[in-house]
Amino acid sequence: MQTTIIHGPGDIRFEERPDPQIQSPSDAVVRVVRTCVCGSDLWPYRGVRPTPAPHPIGHEFIGIVEAVGAEVRNVRVGDFVISPFTDSDGTCVHCRNGITTSCVNFGVWGGTAKTGEPLDGAQGEYVRVPFADGTLVTVPESPDAELFPHLLTLADVMSTGHHAARSGNVQPGATVVVVGDGAVGLCAVLASKRLGAERIIAMSRHEDRQRLARAFGATDIVAERGDDGIAAIEELLGGIGADSVLECVGTKDSMHQALGAVRPGGYLGFVGVPAGAPELPMQQLFSTNIHVAGGIAPVRPYLAELLPDVLSGAIEPGRVFDLSLPLAQVADAYTAMDQRTAIKVLLEP
Amino acid sequence: MQTTIIHGPGDIRFEERPDPQIQSPSDAVVRVVRTCVCGSDLWPYRGVRPTPAPHPIGHEFIGIVEAVGAEVRNVRVGDFVISPFTDSDGTCVHCRNGITTSCVNFGVWGGTAKTGEPLDGAQGEYVRVPFADGTLVTVPESPDAELFPHLLTLADVMSTGHHAARSGNVQPGATVVVVGDGAVGLCAVLASKRLGAERIIAMSRHEDRQRLARAFGATDIVAERGDDGIAAIEELLGGIGADSVLECVGTKDSMHQALGAVRPGGYLGFVGVPAGAPELPMQQLFSTNIHVAGGIAPVRPYLAELLPDVLSGAIEPGRVFDLSLPLAQVADAYTAMDQRTAIKVLLEP
Repeated sequence: MQTTIIHGPGDIRFEERPDPQIQSPSDAVVRVVRTCVCGSDLWPYRGVRPTPAPHPIGHEFIGIVEAVGAEVRNVRVGDFVISPFTDSDGTCVHCRNGITTSCVNFGVWGGTAKTGEPLDGAQGEYVRVPFADGTLVTVPESPDAELFPHLLTLADVMSTGHHAARSGNVQPGATVVVVGDGAVGLCAVLASKRLGAERIIAMSRHEDRQRLARAFGATDIVAERGDDGIAAIEELLGGIGADSVLECVGTKDSMHQALGAVRPGGYLGFVGVPAGAPELPMQQLFSTNIHVAGGIAPVRPYLAELLPDVLSGAIEPGRVFDLSLPLAQVADAYTAMDQRTAIKVLLEP
Repeated sequence: MQTTIIHGPGDIRFEERPDPQIQSPSDAVVRVVRTCVCGSDLWPYRGVRPTPAPHPIGHEFIGIVEAVGAEVRNVRVGDFVISPFTDSDGTCVHCRNGITTSCVNFGVWGGTAKTGEPLDGAQGEYVRVPFADGTLVTVPESPDAELFPHLLTLADVMSTGHHAARSGNVQPGATVVVVGDGAVGLCAVLASKRLGAERIIAMSRHEDRQRLARAFGATDIVAERGDDGIAAIEELLGGIGADSVLECVGTKDSMHQALGAVRPGGYLGFVGVPAGAPELPMQQLFSTNIHVAGGIAPVRPYLAELLPDVLSGAIEPGRVFDLSLPLAQVADAYTAMDQRTAIKVLLEP
């Protein structure tokens, strides 16, 4: 098969690799129908995270099951499936607790499983999925192609935006601030709207993203950052912070901004992958009674809740894709995301 | 009146001060019936926090209303009242949100109000209470003296232990770890038991406190600290952390220990006053999806829930008092707490 391999900063290649085979009776092999590039893929691409050796990359895909091992029960050959960006066995104590990202057999596509075995990347033609029953979710009836982008966001960005909103305790009628206007931040706006938030302030300084934020339900836009951004929010909200602030970036600055925008007793939901080791100041949390929760999104258990809304057309998170390319042009997709000429790039094998 | 003044580290004096008077129509003056020494009073006593000038000290009291201003509606002269350790106006947006500790007119007894006016200390014969309606809670019918210690804990330590348990999302059937065996930690054990926790592990290396922890509902005791303590908890809980960990100390070490004892997706409730500026590592929170909440306890709204259980005898949090002294011997009370010969000292004017 052809699949995407990162060789180092700025060096993305679409290369021939052996077709994946069933190796364990709990495996499935999935033919990828759509995949995409994630903001976090840019970290090794930009050299922010090292790439000691070439490896497959990409962690978001939907596809059709091509083969299953003898013990697989929940998916069949021919099923149209969504894969969370991680695998999970579905049976360990953490999976049973709903934290599939802490599964004892956890692994991210393109990375390594806890056993040390390398996992296929999602930006390829095929992916071998260990623990298929605990990982894959079947889409009932084969969906129309126009649904593919929306379904693909459930693999990561929409589910992660939803995780921000759940972790940030977004309630009907709530005031919400979303920090970050990438695909995840935009999906967090949509998730907040879906959960009934009344006032949703998107922090963004890019016109195209502001437009999509409004389409997803943002009632206000704040372009200022840092303490100016915090002051602008307080003014919008009558002098106090928001009930819920959703942090979708992960830097020290964005975390400072997010924390400063929460009202006393409010909630900070964070899903931005921490960069530069930001820390939370205990004294500030102590004096304000702000709740903090979030992290890497346990996508699998959220799919039962989100999938019906995508299938019914109630939400259209796939609108975050503003560029579509053939998978073979994956390197161009990275360039577009890196240079911010696209919010998120859809790839078609 | 006679009241307690701290002059500097180790220098506690019981001194004559003018009797408090009604200054504002929303004031009440309360005659103190019982007060006590808090673990946090030891910080200036030990010089951990500076005492730039002598000031009244003590923030826990119950008493009888002696006088009220013209606008006071909820309490009357002769009422037996509990005061939270802070005052609150009961009308601002933060009070309405239930975060009375963020009240725009917030102040801690013995400290200063946000207006800069000095507040009376609780370790004295009388206390002037600004915003009496928003602060004081009346005990229906005059309680028997044997209830006084239990009622007094509602001013701070029992309500704070309850806040730890609520912030830590203690649920019926949950596994709970309590870090800290001071009065607050012990009350957090009792609060967890009251909320239906099934397994309560108290971390303590002092035999008298272990005994009281068991009496309050602890099912297990772990004497080890740090990583050894975390390992001991994992062993008790079948290899994973606890659903809820309640941090009742506030140091970097205790926070590390607490965080390490939470299961993925679990809850850390913290009420220990942060000492030495501990910070929360975002990367650890991100990868484990641990929820963090807590802080200075908004006591006032909790009293409606806790007071009936004290009056009925369902809980006896006043057992944390293991020494009782006349108020005039307040300096001896500080010595006993400082030298850990007493868990908590009750003072009777």
